[in-house]
Parts: sequence; structure tokens; C-alpha cells
Amino acid sequence: MSTEGVRRAVIINGHETAYESASTHIEDRGYQFGESVYEVLAFYSGTPLRLSEHLSRLSRSAVAIGLELPSSESLIRDIARAAGMADIVTGSVYIQVTSGVSPRAHIAQEKLSPTVTIIAQATPPDRTGLPLVPITCVTVPDERWARCNIKTTNLLPNVLARKTAIQRGYDDALFVRDGLILEGPSNNVFFVRNGGLLTPPANNFILEGITRAAIIEVARKLRLEVRQEPVTPEAAYGSQEAFITSTIMNIRPISVIDGQRYPSPIPGPVTDAVYENLLRLIDDETNAKT
Amino acid sequence: MSTEGVRRAVIINGHETAYESASTHIEDRGYQFGESVYEVLAFYSGTPLRLSEHLSRLSRSAVAIGLELPSSESLIRDIARAAGMADIVTGSVYIQVTSGVSPRAHIAQEKLSPTVTIIAQATPPDRTGLPLVPITCVTVPDERWARCNIKTTNLLPNVLARKTAIQRGYDDALFVRDGLILEGPSNNVFFVRNGGLLTPPANNFILEGITRAAIIEVARKLRLEVRQEPVTPEAAYGSQEAFITSTIMNIRPISVIDGQRYPSPIPGPVTDAVYENLLRLIDDETNAKT
Repeated sequence: MSTEGVRRAVIINGHETAYESASTHIEDRGYQFGESVYEVLAFYSGTPLRLSEHLSRLSRSAVAIGLELPSSESLIRDIARAAGMADIVTGSVYIQVTSGVSPRAHIAQEKLSPTVTIIAQATPPDRTGLPLVPITCVTVPDERWARCNIKTTNLLPNVLARKTAIQRGYDDALFVRDGLILEGPSNNVFFVRNGGLLTPPANNFILEGITRAAIIEVARKLRLEVRQEPVTPEAAYGSQEAFITSTIMNIRPISVIDGQRYPSPIPGPVTDAVYENLLRLIDDETNAKT
Repeated sequence: MSTEGVRRAVIINGHETAYESASTHIEDRGYQFGESVYEVLAFYSGTPLRLSEHLSRLSRSAVAIGLELPSSESLIRDIARAAGMADIVTGSVYIQVTSGVSPRAHIAQEKLSPTVTIIAQATPPDRTGLPLVPITCVTVPDERWARCNIKTTNLLPNVLARKTAIQRGYDDALFVRDGLILEGPSNNVFFVRNGGLLTPPANNFILEGITRAAIIEVARKLRLEVRQEPVTPEAAYGSQEAFITSTIMNIRPISVIDGQRYPSPIPGPVTDAVYENLLRLIDDETNAKT
């Protein structure tokens, strides 16, 4: 396993653990059944962006699958400890909570104690200042389950969709179910139509992104119309600009969708304005807290 | 974690490992993405039943998700070693193969080496002689993904379905998708109608059981008609007998489906005959090899 060039720190169930030997039992129900939820936090100026939103979503995911979380206080404390151990200025923290370890049976035969894994990772500090690198996307049939609004580690269909996209010469996939574009394997998607934003509505087929919500706030501040409405591939093809959003990437403009190229420049003016204001929001929210 | 009363042995990547400390790295892609396939073998008289069928299915599952398996020879050798270490006469062996360990990214950024986990477990020897304990089943909406024919560890929907059944006062669930009964969370289902067997056809919404295939063989030997056809809940309600099948349980008769009770005796005569002949098949296939 390659670990060069990145500073990492791990806390498992409250215990600092060397990254190289950080492990869990093979009968962890996260490993055998995917009974497991997670979040990824982005840090700027040493501060996690929208921590409470991420922890609320983690809690909603846990409730949805009947998993008991440790207290928010202990999660917040361990996240801060791990970030401190990795000396994060900019970087990310991955939090995974499984229902715990028990001899394999679909229904555990004993009271469980959750496994909480936190991986902090420091990355170069100038990330948000980078120019926006465009990506190409291809629509693929959505083969995921019916509860995509729960952030679980049953991510195999997401991995397979991205692999399919790459095999077809694209960077990423966009899921289509019942004739509608929903989102990517680890991101939400926005289209610019008639000068406003169009994004699929948050329902059980979409993981409602924290960055997605921030983009909607930013767009409203910019007095852009935001429509959360079903998006057909045809509506997407007829859009003037498009971009995906995620906690780690913030925004990446789409240059090509299903072989159709968006006009230059990429990012287009609306994407660019949204991005600039998202960076301002990040700066405001994270600098203010340090 | 309770381990009383059961003899277990573990081999991880070819290495004997104490059960208590048997672990994998937290960045195992099986843990973070469910990029992982598995099989469960039943042993009788110290011999695995239909080993080659299970290994073929493991191989098909691996190919379907782009995962590279170790050679069959090394898997067979390690299964036999683990079974020997646990002194299995009757018992089970669980085999899980993940794509390996790598810093978290949907698409691994390096060449991976799979994690192969084998857990052998010896159980009391008289299991197949036990009377058939009936179970009660309730139909639930199938929320799983569209590739249920691949035996992956993305099993959360299966766990949730069984939990739902239990919360409603039943023992297990039967998935219904598009108005058709498919299977249970870890078993296939058969109905007895007009003296013959009826079971849903094996397609991408069903995990084609090794025991299911054995039952079909047995039924044909008994000159029972076997129809592999779509099963509506109404067809199920109108059946004379019903049973589920799995590697570990072989057969369990259904006594109640959706609140409707099958007539006594349970198991009914057809289920009973099929079970008796399944035991004979198991005996023939496993004693012959010792």
C-alpha cells in the first residue's frame, strides 16, 4: 500500500493507532455485511467545513439502518484529535462507523459495540486556489439500491459505474434511473439552463450533498434561479454549462456529456461565478472559526 | 464478541491467524466500498458439499465486479487447511475475497493484491438429522440493487429486510419486486403447487443457490414437475406447501406467509420427500469422497 507524500493519522474507537497497522476484526459487520455509514470532511485553515451538517447526516444515516452512533461530542473530539495528529491545515477526515464485531450472522446474536474509524489526511494547502479542471461524464444505468439517500459503505455499484465510465473513455459516470439523471458515483450534478441552475431533487435516489446545499445557498445569494426538478438526458444535453459537486472536489465543470462537448470557455461564466462565491463561503466559514 | 462453544480457525492470505486477533486493514476496500465477494460452504463427514460449484460461483462473482481471485488450487488448499485446523466433521467455511488494501479512493490508485479471509467453524455433527423447524415469512419490497445474482458483501438491504420481518413478528422476509416474489435475504424459495415445485427463475434479481440447484435435481429424480417461473404473491398464497433453501439450513418449511397459515402437517408430504432425498444426495456426495 503506497502512503508516500501524505500525512495520515488514525483513531479507532478512541485509540490513536499507527496508520500502517490500523485494522479491524474480519468479523466486523462493516466488512461482512456493509452495516456501516460514513462521512468525509474537508478542512480549510485547520477547520472542518460544515461539521454539524456532516454529523447530522451521519446521524440520519445511522438511524435509517438502525445503527447506534457514539455521542456527537466524542465524535467531534476524536475528529479534532485526528486532525491535530495529522497536523491538518487543508486536508480531509474520513469517519466510518460500523455496527461492530460479531460472529457472522445476518442478525447479530449479541449486543454490539460500534467500530468507529477516523482517518485524517493532510494535503497541500493551495487546493482551493487551483484552476477548475474539467471532467467528462457519461450516463450509465443506475443499478444501485432504492435508498441512495443513506450514506452507507455499500458502494460497489458506485465503484463499478465509475469503472464503466473510465472504460468508455470518460472521467466519471452520471446515474440514470427511469429516464432521469440523478447524480454521479460520489457527487451531485448541476446544469445551467436559461441562466439559472437546474439540479435533480433530493429524494431516495440521491445522496443529498453538503456541497450541493452550499451551492444552492451561493446561487440564491447571486440571485440565480435554482430549480430542483427532474432532469432528463435531453434537458442536460440542452444546458449551457454543467458541473459536479462534492465535499472533496467542491466543483468540477463538465466539458463533455455523452460525447457532446460544452462550448468554451470551460468553466462557463455561471459556473465560474458560483465557484468564486463558494470559495468565499468556505473562507468565511472556516477562517471565522479559527 | 462471544465465541463460546464453537471451534473456529482462520486463514488470512494463506497465513494461520488466531481468531481473536484476525483482522484486516481499515483501508481494505471490502470495508470501505464493499468491493468483495464471498461463499459459505457446508461440510458433512469432513467434506465440503459441492465445492466446485461454490468456487465457480465465487469466480463468476469476482469476474462480474472485476476482482482478481487467487488460483482455485490455493483456495482449495486453504479451505482444507482451515477445516483441518478447526477439526470440522460437520460445520461451515466462510470465504471472503476483497480487492485489497489501498488509500481510500473509489478507483484504487495502485495495483492491488486481494485479501482472502477464510473462517472455518465446526458445529455439532447431527445437524442434518434434526426435524425440520418451520419458519414464518413476510413479503417486503425489494430495495436491493439490480445485480442480486452477484454474491457480494453489499448485504445491508438483506440485513434490513430480515430485521423488518422480525419487527413484524416473522422469522424472515421474502423480497417482492415488480409484483413478483424473488427470494429471501439469504435463501431461495420454493412453492408446492398441483403436486409440483414452483420457484422464481434465476435472473439478475436472484442469487442462484447451490442448494436450489440440488433441490431441482432431487425433484426431478422424484419425478416432480419443476417450474422456474415468475411467482406472484397470489400464486404463493394459493400453494399447498412452501420452503426456503440455503447452504447452511438446507431446507426449512414455511408455516406462515403474510399471515396466512399452511395446513398441517408442516413440513407437508412433498417438502418432506424432497428433504429426505436431499439428505441422501448430501450423504452420497460427501461420504463418497471421504
